[in-house]
Amino acid sequence: MDPPYTLYYAPGTASLAVHWLLIESNIPFSAIPVDLASGAQHTAAYRQLNPTGRVPTLVINASGEARSESSALLMLLAERHPDRALMPAVDSPDRALWLETMIYLANTLLPAMRDWFYAATDGSADGAAAVRDLARRRIEGAWDRLDGQVQGGGYLVGTSLSTADFLAVMLMRWARDMPRPATSWPSLGPYARQLTELPSFREVCRREGLAGWPPVSPITTA
Amino acid sequence: MDPPYTLYYAPGTASLAVHWLLIESNIPFSAIPVDLASGAQHTAAYRQLNPTGRVPTLVINASGEARSESSALLMLLAERHPDRALMPAVDSPDRALWLETMIYLANTLLPAMRDWFYAATDGSADGAAAVRDLARRRIEGAWDRLDGQVQGGGYLVGTSLSTADFLAVMLMRWARDMPRPATSWPSLGPYARQLTELPSFREVCRREGLAGWPPVSPITTA
Repeated sequence: MDPPYTLYYAPGTASLAVHWLLIESNIPFSAIPVDLASGAQHTAAYRQLNPTGRVPTLVINASGEARSESSALLMLLAERHPDRALMPAVDSPDRALWLETMIYLANTLLPAMRDWFYAATDGSADGAAAVRDLARRRIEGAWDRLDGQVQGGGYLVGTSLSTADFLAVMLMRWARDMPRPATSWPSLGPYARQLTELPSFREVCRREGLAGWPPVSPITTA
Repeated sequence: MDPPYTLYYAPGTASLAVHWLLIESNIPFSAIPVDLASGAQHTAAYRQLNPTGRVPTLVINASGEARSESSALLMLLAERHPDRALMPAVDSPDRALWLETMIYLANTLLPAMRDWFYAATDGSADGAAAVRDLARRRIEGAWDRLDGQVQGGGYLVGTSLSTADFLAVMLMRWARDMPRPATSWPSLGPYARQLTELPSFREVCRREGLAGWPPVSPITTA
């Protein structure tokens, strides 16, 4: 029997990758929306589950243990469900690249994205422009690197879908309205289009009420 | 036989945690210093090993595969050497907390530290003050959280030393000259002192030519 997962999510946020992976992998779970607009993430009940007041939170066992950090949850689900082949096995030649890629996405692209969107609320309003400027440099540098990594294959690591792809596509989607969207990079554009055509991506968008992405027509570089 | 690891490092940088873990765990390796001051990290030879031009880089097999990202390297070494017990096993009740903690350190504290030290070189000189101000908020928030996590035990995860401790102590050391050093938090001070008394920490400091840390006398809050 699968563990009784409960995902606390908000549409289109960092919970998207976890939500998508659960659906793609056919792992049983229940989902509870957290209404960020009304501040539900700051209630005592939610803070007890996740003291950071962010999404996602995933309840991972029957005793109610709640854990956070989207990258960590993807890795946890991958290793708890090895039959779903969501990561290279420990003895695979692709294992080290997978670990490096997961950490790179988590410690370079994800925090830069946070700066891009939340500079003014995490920091001072005065300093937001400087923080966002640096964030944009880092984000575009990351697309350069990932564009090279995906070349030749349809995935970031090895020849099959892994947790790194769920995370990367989520981050690419976040950048859709930036001056240079990730999909304008030559290899990342086809990469995103291929992965977002998966029925599981369409289903998670349906459940979260998100518009289709990326657009069907070719995207030109800004 | 152990794999033929080669660590490219620079004293006191992000390579410290990996260097320390290799010594503590008695894993055979050779070490090559990278002279950041003279720009050795930007040479074509080094960029071929690590296109980001950062340390650490770890060569992980006989065919010369080179990988980076300190957090990923710690995790890779832990899973390649399970007899060293550097992480909770996949089926351990502490596993999810370990994954969450590794990702939290990698995606919150590590990038904030980079901003604190490199705001002016990664971004514009004009914007550096704003970036550093936000970084300080995030770093001090992270010490609050970790101070709570370490309470009651001498480690961040479970009841024994894990990769999370190597990473956290390295990051705490980086903050030693900040307005509020991590060691001024009530539980983090004793935590750092206990771990830095390990012979392996003294040995890595000796090999990298680093002064002892933290100071023996109690540190007062700024």
